[in-house]
Amino acid sequence: MDIAALREKNPDHWMKSTAIRALTLDGVAGANSGHSGMPMGMADVATVLFEKHMKFDVAAPNWPDRDRFILSAGHGSMLIYSLLYLMGDAQVTLEQIKNFRQMGALTAGHPENFLLDAVETTTGPLGQGIANAVGFAMAEEIQRAQYGRKIVDHKTYVIAGDGCLMEGLSQEAIGLAGRHSLGNLIVLWDNNNITIDGTVELSDRTDQVKRFKASGWHVQEIDGHDPEAIDAAIEAAKKTKKPSMIACKTHIAIGHAAQDTSKGHGALTDAEQLAAAKELYGWTGGAYEVPADIKAQWEAIGTRGAADREAWEGRFAEASKQKQDRFNRAYALDAPKKLSATVKALKKQISEEQPSVATRKSSEMALAAINPIMPETVGGSADLTGSNNTKTGDLGVFDTDNRKGRYIYWGIREHGMAAAMNGMALHGGMRPYGGTFFCFTDYARPSMRLAALSKIPTVFVMTHDSIGVGEDGPTHQPVEHLAICRATPNTYVFRPADSVETAEAWEIALTAKETPSVLALTRQNLPTLRTEHKLANLTEKGAYVLAEAEGKRQAILIATGSEVATAMEAKKLLEAEGIGTRVVSMPCMELFAAQDEAYRRKVLPAGAAVRVGIEAAVRAGGWDQWLLGERARAGKSDFVGMASFGASAPAGELFEKFGITAANVADKVKALL
Amino acid sequence: MDIAALREKNPDHWMKSTAIRALTLDGVAGANSGHSGMPMGMADVATVLFEKHMKFDVAAPNWPDRDRFILSAGHGSMLIYSLLYLMGDAQVTLEQIKNFRQMGALTAGHPENFLLDAVETTTGPLGQGIANAVGFAMAEEIQRAQYGRKIVDHKTYVIAGDGCLMEGLSQEAIGLAGRHSLGNLIVLWDNNNITIDGTVELSDRTDQVKRFKASGWHVQEIDGHDPEAIDAAIEAAKKTKKPSMIACKTHIAIGHAAQDTSKGHGALTDAEQLAAAKELYGWTGGAYEVPADIKAQWEAIGTRGAADREAWEGRFAEASKQKQDRFNRAYALDAPKKLSATVKALKKQISEEQPSVATRKSSEMALAAINPIMPETVGGSADLTGSNNTKTGDLGVFDTDNRKGRYIYWGIREHGMAAAMNGMALHGGMRPYGGTFFCFTDYARPSMRLAALSKIPTVFVMTHDSIGVGEDGPTHQPVEHLAICRATPNTYVFRPADSVETAEAWEIALTAKETPSVLALTRQNLPTLRTEHKLANLTEKGAYVLAEAEGKRQAILIATGSEVATAMEAKKLLEAEGIGTRVVSMPCMELFAAQDEAYRRKVLPAGAAVRVGIEAAVRAGGWDQWLLGERARAGKSDFVGMASFGASAPAGELFEKFGITAANVADKVKALL
Repeated sequence: MDIAALREKNPDHWMKSTAIRALTLDGVAGANSGHSGMPMGMADVATVLFEKHMKFDVAAPNWPDRDRFILSAGHGSMLIYSLLYLMGDAQVTLEQIKNFRQMGALTAGHPENFLLDAVETTTGPLGQGIANAVGFAMAEEIQRAQYGRKIVDHKTYVIAGDGCLMEGLSQEAIGLAGRHSLGNLIVLWDNNNITIDGTVELSDRTDQVKRFKASGWHVQEIDGHDPEAIDAAIEAAKKTKKPSMIACKTHIAIGHAAQDTSKGHGALTDAEQLAAAKELYGWTGGAYEVPADIKAQWEAIGTRGAADREAWEGRFAEASKQKQDRFNRAYALDAPKKLSATVKALKKQISEEQPSVATRKSSEMALAAINPIMPETVGGSADLTGSNNTKTGDLGVFDTDNRKGRYIYWGIREHGMAAAMNGMALHGGMRPYGGTFFCFTDYARPSMRLAALSKIPTVFVMTHDSIGVGEDGPTHQPVEHLAICRATPNTYVFRPADSVETAEAWEIALTAKETPSVLALTRQNLPTLRTEHKLANLTEKGAYVLAEAEGKRQAILIATGSEVATAMEAKKLLEAEGIGTRVVSMPCMELFAAQDEAYRRKVLPAGAAVRVGIEAAVRAGGWDQWLLGERARAGKSDFVGMASFGASAPAGELFEKFGITAANVADKVKALL
Repeated sequence: MDIAALREKNPDHWMKSTAIRALTLDGVAGANSGHSGMPMGMADVATVLFEKHMKFDVAAPNWPDRDRFILSAGHGSMLIYSLLYLMGDAQVTLEQIKNFRQMGALTAGHPENFLLDAVETTTGPLGQGIANAVGFAMAEEIQRAQYGRKIVDHKTYVIAGDGCLMEGLSQEAIGLAGRHSLGNLIVLWDNNNITIDGTVELSDRTDQVKRFKASGWHVQEIDGHDPEAIDAAIEAAKKTKKPSMIACKTHIAIGHAAQDTSKGHGALTDAEQLAAAKELYGWTGGAYEVPADIKAQWEAIGTRGAADREAWEGRFAEASKQKQDRFNRAYALDAPKKLSATVKALKKQISEEQPSVATRKSSEMALAAINPIMPETVGGSADLTGSNNTKTGDLGVFDTDNRKGRYIYWGIREHGMAAAMNGMALHGGMRPYGGTFFCFTDYARPSMRLAALSKIPTVFVMTHDSIGVGEDGPTHQPVEHLAICRATPNTYVFRPADSVETAEAWEIALTAKETPSVLALTRQNLPTLRTEHKLANLTEKGAYVLAEAEGKRQAILIATGSEVATAMEAKKLLEAEGIGTRVVSMPCMELFAAQDEAYRRKVLPAGAAVRVGIEAAVRAGGWDQWLLGERARAGKSDFVGMASFGASAPAGELFEKFGITAANVADKVKALL
């Protein structure tokens, strides 16, 4: 690489971009870990992007109509941290740069949205950022249609690496963006031809240009170290109505001894090589030192968007009070005032009418009541709309000619759907929910984890939640998925027993601000069990006494979802034999565990009563804590559920085959007495 | 659709293919569930494939050098069942067709490899089959190089639908097949333009022809109802050295009232419409009835491969005894006789030398000893070779010019790697293992579940197994992944404490025949704890007493992996205060749970001793059963581990921050005493 020629051709630009390189080298050397090569290679692109194009005001990194910048190649986190420090971000001080990757620093190994205001999304697991970006761009389209171009009109920029493009998730993102002509989405591909194991050719020879074009993208190929070419390409990308991919040919770890090698991907910490690179760059600053004139130029870049922001604030102030309130409420993730009353009215109606429906249908009933009063919801399904019951009549379908549509046909892309929903939530002003079969939690899993880690309230509507699936068989029958979701920190896992609990679960999911929710819903019909209307949201307690023992309490049955009805039947059998039996419905273990001990003791008291847990899933899904712990008597509890994968047969026969029946529950209780 | 013209043009072919359609309609109607449209639409393609091309002998569906047929669109299972019944498969009797999707039938809702010999792989979760097929084709290439073309020379055919191609996983498969020029892989795309939610355009407008070409595939487009075109295309596909995709334009549910609609995707059970379709077809057979002449033609197709098989058996008999033995041993999944002695020798050496290394390095040590004596192993990594330590010197790298290479650079494709590894295992004669970071279990998860369900011994080498990852932070730090893997039925989850346990875990993983293994390995160095050489494989018991209490036993510490060393340190602290402490190492909960009670009681006896579990992961990963159950005293146990996501900082500081230290363990014990 002829660094001298680059320096000479664009000296000002060179020094600005080299500030990123120098800080990256210093930050990584200081931490003795991290990834140097990517920020060094993409420094030119990032510099031009922020200097000439990004609508960004460092004084207000969360201003709603800013352009979004997503570092899909999250390991290159020093790129973001360098940019933010150089522009004068209040959070990313020099101290933070020096504490890169250290305990308590905001400058974590990978960018984390919950640590820094200016970080739009938590990245690192590859491919997530580019798929998040689809959701960001969709949210922008929908809100532009809802609020008007004066209030919402911004771009989503993504830097993605070879790793992002090799992950299958990226194909789902590319397909969605192409299908929906997300013209405000611009992906800058760091085309450096290097992965950890070697050159890209070692594992892939896909022509990325042809691949993106096959899905309807606008594609350009440029020298990623030529500022004029970068500028012109971004300019062209902003003009096209298609999503845009700019293939930026770059040299990883440019100017360093490790340039163009896999070694360059990682932590370049050798002091001599570092010094040599800085010398080659013509960089005069010492460690962590940015010459004042260069810092000043960057700070000016940081304030470029201030005028835009002020103009926007002016336009926003002129909007109707109603529009402002709605916008502010949605961005604050506050529920509309009507929500509580709406859910209560629905619950009352259900308790009176006592429908016998699948909870996936109960979910549709709740959404039909809620969607019209919450314009921030966006629904969808991964090609199972009629099965997931996620579409309500008022939503309209999002499409190129109907940007107001709030229902998205995601196609057979559970992972892409989950990641894009996260993107919508992270964008702000939206509450996305989307459905697939509970078993395909597996496909969406990397993004479901990131929702929890990122502290965003994405809602995953997972229907067909057990062997109740029936004939489709074990590939489609979740048994371990409740355990998977419950083991994940910061996740509400709801398995409602009837239409009332389903409405309550939706109320919690749509008022949560920092916790994603999983709704595990049945395929098969269930009776209404909450036949007595209560104003209080009982699901909020996680578990509660649904039916008290008649006479002396000898048994406590704890159940979730479809098995609560089984517990109620078992109670009848037991009471008929004089065995007083309490039934506890436990729609959300996380919320029950969060109650104080006094409440938990009321629901699961110490004493002589035996306990049986009932759930058509593996016991490992958190059952031992309630059956062995929580004041349980040793040897006086049991579990009725699944200990293997399911099978293909009609659902009723499967519940018999696997012993998930009232008779078996009653037998277990009697064996324990 | 002009059915009359189709019938007239190729009357014989039409009746053969219509036999599939008729059986599909009858089978689905009988089950009152299932998917009619796909087998109906692809009946012509399947008929030509089996009649003219597939090397298949119905009398020996598991003959090793057969062509493989994979129904990636697994919901169309009646296609396979119809084919097998028509050709005279011994398992798929008419009774089985009539019992489609019923309890105990071999004709499950989706094709399951463990139910039917002729089903190569369990499909249903979309995209899996096409990615399995990459592994099948790689296994064929490797074995052809190992054994010669006389012994191994066959094709892998796949039928994939729009759903398979929308799943991101398919892109990983397409990229891999193109990169490695898997010329024996032929994908027949059921290009019917229909998904469950509507036409494909609703969610995708990708030009699939261009997309496959971008990754180096040979692509043809044909009328999927024209037998001559189908034949010619398959003929051309067999000749090219590239992987081949044939886009077969078809009409879903052809000839039925639901033709070309989403309704046609599902169960077509209306009796009148069914009768009308059969009449239009010119089909004279009643329900489940195939006219004798058509059945006879199909049975002749079923025996087409018999001569090939016999010729192969002749060639195989002429091969050297050594080659035959090796081949038969590998296909029987029998370990080489030397394995046991090799592992014992390695264990002895480790116990003597007592290295302090990360268990990912211990794993490399085990592989370095084992790979040279097990030519059926195939290793790889999803672009983390140097981190996963999966590559040993003897393997050679699989490439277009080195088909003997047994190491695969999978690229950044955890999911594709896992699915292709499953394909290799399902192909037979191979033992695949592959690595990524444990956190990215998430990406591979759908295929890991299928390995367990399919009863195949794929080995997942998951390194960087806790907050020991350090600076990379919570996106890269698993906390719930042990729980996820342990909640999955039929999965061994090993978390070895040192190099000896790692060698033992590998021995179990590489002798397992029906159970996949997950090896959770550390990034950070660990001391050798098994300093006294034992011939017995103690890991096989799942848990064992690593160190006995001195004097009266007051505490039992149960730990896995890196935390066993922490337990040993805590023991020292406690014994110094006169508190007799037993340390139990528990490298595999599943195997311990499978021991008889007498053994479990020996390890975890009843009595006064308090128990503390230690694992740098969430307690939900199966801990309550050992801490609250299994003769534990109420209120006399505790857990030291993670209750949240991790953080970005040096590993040592993180263990301090989250309290996973010997001092904290000792304090917990003392608080319980």
